[in-house]
Amino acid sequence: MKKTIDLNCDMGESFGHYKLGNDDEVIKYISSVNVACGFHAGDPNIMDHTVKIAKENGVGVGAHPGFPDLAGFGRRNMEIPRDELMNMIIYQIGALDIFCKKHGVKMQHIKPHGNLNNMADTDEQWAVNIVDAVLAVKPDLPIYVKPHSELHRMAEKKGLPFILEIFADRAYHKDFSLVSRREEGAVISEPEFVADRIITMVTEGKVKAITGEEIEVNGETICVHGDTPTALEMIKVIRRRLEEAGIEVQSPFA
Amino acid sequence: MKKTIDLNCDMGESFGHYKLGNDDEVIKYISSVNVACGFHAGDPNIMDHTVKIAKENGVGVGAHPGFPDLAGFGRRNMEIPRDELMNMIIYQIGALDIFCKKHGVKMQHIKPHGNLNNMADTDEQWAVNIVDAVLAVKPDLPIYVKPHSELHRMAEKKGLPFILEIFADRAYHKDFSLVSRREEGAVISEPEFVADRIITMVTEGKVKAITGEEIEVNGETICVHGDTPTALEMIKVIRRRLEEAGIEVQSPFA
Amino acid sequence: MKKTIDLNCDMGESFGHYKLGNDDEVIKYISSVNVACGFHAGDPNIMDHTVKIAKENGVGVGAHPGFPDLAGFGRRNMEIPRDELMNMIIYQIGALDIFCKKHGVKMQHIKPHGNLNNMADTDEQWAVNIVDAVLAVKPDLPIYVKPHSELHRMAEKKGLPFILEIFADRAYHKDFSLVSRREEGAVISEPEFVADRIITMVTEGKVKAITGEEIEVNGETICVHGDTPTALEMIKVIRRRLEEAGIEVQSPFA
Amino acid sequence: MKKTIDLNCDMGESFGHYKLGNDDEVIKYISSVNVACGFHAGDPNIMDHTVKIAKENGVGVGAHPGFPDLAGFGRRNMEIPRDELMNMIIYQIGALDIFCKKHGVKMQHIKPHGNLNNMADTDEQWAVNIVDAVLAVKPDLPIYVKPHSELHRMAEKKGLPFILEIFADRAYHKDFSLVSRREEGAVISEPEFVADRIITMVTEGKVKAITGEEIEVNGETICVHGDTPTALEMIKVIRRRLEEAGIEVQSPFA
Repeated sequence: MKKTIDLNCDMGESFGHYKLGNDDEVIKYISSVNVACGFHAGDPNIMDHTVKIAKENGVGVGAHPGFPDLAGFGRRNMEIPRDELMNMIIYQIGALDIFCKKHGVKMQHIKPHGNLNNMADTDEQWAVNIVDAVLAVKPDLPIYVKPHSELHRMAEKKGLPFILEIFADRAYHKDFSLVSRREEGAVISEPEFVADRIITMVTEGKVKAITGEEIEVNGETICVHGDTPTALEMIKVIRRRLEEAGIEVQSPFA
Repeated sequence: MKKTIDLNCDMGESFGHYKLGNDDEVIKYISSVNVACGFHAGDPNIMDHTVKIAKENGVGVGAHPGFPDLAGFGRRNMEIPRDELMNMIIYQIGALDIFCKKHGVKMQHIKPHGNLNNMADTDEQWAVNIVDAVLAVKPDLPIYVKPHSELHRMAEKKGLPFILEIFADRAYHKDFSLVSRREEGAVISEPEFVADRIITMVTEGKVKAITGEEIEVNGETICVHGDTPTALEMIKVIRRRLEEAGIEVQSPFA
Repeated sequence: MKKTIDLNCDMGESFGHYKLGNDDEVIKYISSVNVACGFHAGDPNIMDHTVKIAKENGVGVGAHPGFPDLAGFGRRNMEIPRDELMNMIIYQIGALDIFCKKHGVKMQHIKPHGNLNNMADTDEQWAVNIVDAVLAVKPDLPIYVKPHSELHRMAEKKGLPFILEIFADRAYHKDFSLVSRREEGAVISEPEFVADRIITMVTEGKVKAITGEEIEVNGETICVHGDTPTALEMIKVIRRRLEEAGIEVQSPFA
Repeated sequence: MKKTIDLNCDMGESFGHYKLGNDDEVIKYISSVNVACGFHAGDPNIMDHTVKIAKENGVGVGAHPGFPDLAGFGRRNMEIPRDELMNMIIYQIGALDIFCKKHGVKMQHIKPHGNLNNMADTDEQWAVNIVDAVLAVKPDLPIYVKPHSELHRMAEKKGLPFILEIFADRAYHKDFSLVSRREEGAVISEPEFVADRIITMVTEGKVKAITGEEIEVNGETICVHGDTPTALEMIKVIRRRLEEAGIEVQSPFA
């Protein structure tokens, strides 16, 4: 029975004059952070700050590369050829890596952002491109993947280390695909219920599908969101409940 | 008497669909390349390509960070506070560094681009910001500086390695400042005459000021431009003349 | 004795996923709005929305062109040649104008944003460039100017209509230049005191300089800020106090 | 029998320091120009220049809006919701319109660029969005459409004026869809043969499909490309051949 779990959260998504999220507060409750790298969000200043506060709070730092589309926040699909996609990811990893170096921390993981990630759920070539990009420059860097996604399968196939990621506030189908946000019941907003789900998953290795079936999963990291007051409240509840259950929140490599 | 000289050239300045320069040809005649990092010019694809051809040609790779101003090509001044300026430079160094890592080459040097560089000729605080940025992440990375500029003084003062750079096709005042492009005689376009100046400088350590005085200089690298047919022709003449004079074109660290 | 005053406020400064300000609320208390045009802030969607709510609230719509620098919010200086500056302003006016056309409103005024405006306080050539840009496409479009600025003088000289703008929450020197934000007393944050100043100015045509002298001014519009909860509170106080004093808040052309 | 034809060409695709195409030369041989509006290509300066030379050469000016993706030149697909797509198109029309106003010309037409256009070949909703955007601000502005595309059908259905556009250097299937560039024979590079096709189409209203069938078409404008030396040569041949055949090259509204 596992007794630790990683809580990861997207951060560093401000840009210039625009502030997003509540990073300085949220970071106290999590164990890993996915840092925007200046394409879909973030800028050099906020990257520097985010790595700094991650180090101060003992939180693992991951690269969170996205599409070059600030206006769309990396959430709308873009058709990008393999070479360009790979170089775009490599560039962003490098940009974050040097801020890690500046602050004396080792980059812990990579997690693709938004639609760059979603495309790799089911598109095999897309998954290959992402995995190859990481292998080209950081062959030992673990990638956060959704269980049973193409990205998961491809990381396993090509020998890139991976960490299985669960979305605690999202309903799953029994094949472990996420229920679309457009469907009822897709998003779970009740903090105690979300905490229950995580505890069951960590202690029993199971999560209940939207249709009732229990599905097995060895989730190693839980994705939480911190960009609204409600979200921050949920993180606090999750953190407290996990501690009450004797489950330690720590990064996968702590 | 010195018998080698470095020829450096700006490269990787294309962007997406836009092509600039004649990199694949020019790179055969030089020994160091300053690679645009995606802010004033360049993109991840062209960076990848430029590092690749630099390696293939045995040419040293330098970071060429600039202002975040593609429309202005980094040549118009921007007022940027110290922290933001430093992080902007660090980000660009990191972005290029990972392409160096991908291709198995070691970053050789840094040379600020356009007005980011020009500001540091005479503005002490600006020079401090650039030197501190490099020291924060690459304390052993040599910086190309104009002799007697504030950037030169500051690198020396703070212990950042530096390489003295001469503009062979530009006239100098006797205090070693460049004659403004707006003044007559500022730009020297006759290839043989440019070659003569370089040979004199390398073999005798002297260059003649626009007012006739001989000034002493231990230039270690010559900046050449390759983005026009004429410029390519000049590089070929310089290269041939240097070889005839028994001066080897090689990077400062070869 | 004047009995009306214009309250103007910058709006439409959100960008994509990034929200800025409290436009839908603030717009109820003002009479003119300066709409960001997609360069320093704003995007086509928010421009469309801002013109729409301006029309719904009977508020005059002005173009608020700025530098092409989203990261710096148009507040850091950029060196831009005359032709490029003029075309940049014209482009932004055109972009807003078509949303005015779409919603059936007539563009009421223009007010340059941030450092594009500040440069024209004292730089005559800069002021000429702005005025010429407006004259080239909208010769009858009034420009909001600071009294005694170069922009004021140039609009007057060249026959471009202008509206004198006062910053109610900022202290003035006796020559009517603004006290720098870096100096003590530069910003006035007490709403009732700000309201007093405006009422005195409207009813007596006078404002007190930071050194105590009364200076004469026929301010026709007051710039207010609405992007913080405190700012919204101040607008409400100003609006209430003006109404109590029998001064109607309305756009200069209502 | 028709005796005139419009030759249209994309122009104004330079950006800042980056030059693309040979506009000043090509414009002498065509009758309509599609001007990039600063999103996929172009900037305020080049827009100003392009409208200016169009006027000088008596060439009709059209808006050529594209995706906000300079790096991809508007050629890679982007998923953009209806409102955002419409406002993006409206913004670009407005930006060009004011340069038309500055130079005293009336905007002649609109032609969507790259993938913004291609998507509307077969995607009905996409076509609706484009047509609605134009109708919202310029209900009388003709749109260039491919015959039998969704954009064609939707313009007809909604009452937006349209002009049928033929690609003289591209092979057609018998259903009037373009043969994909990936297939052999898709692109016709022999100038005299291209000229033959145009003349047959203008004088007989027919074009031969790649499979040999004659298909009827009342093409009103021919799209030509001018961004390579070969392309310029082709335009000259086309122009000469048309004149020899007694067909006048003029804009649809001359």
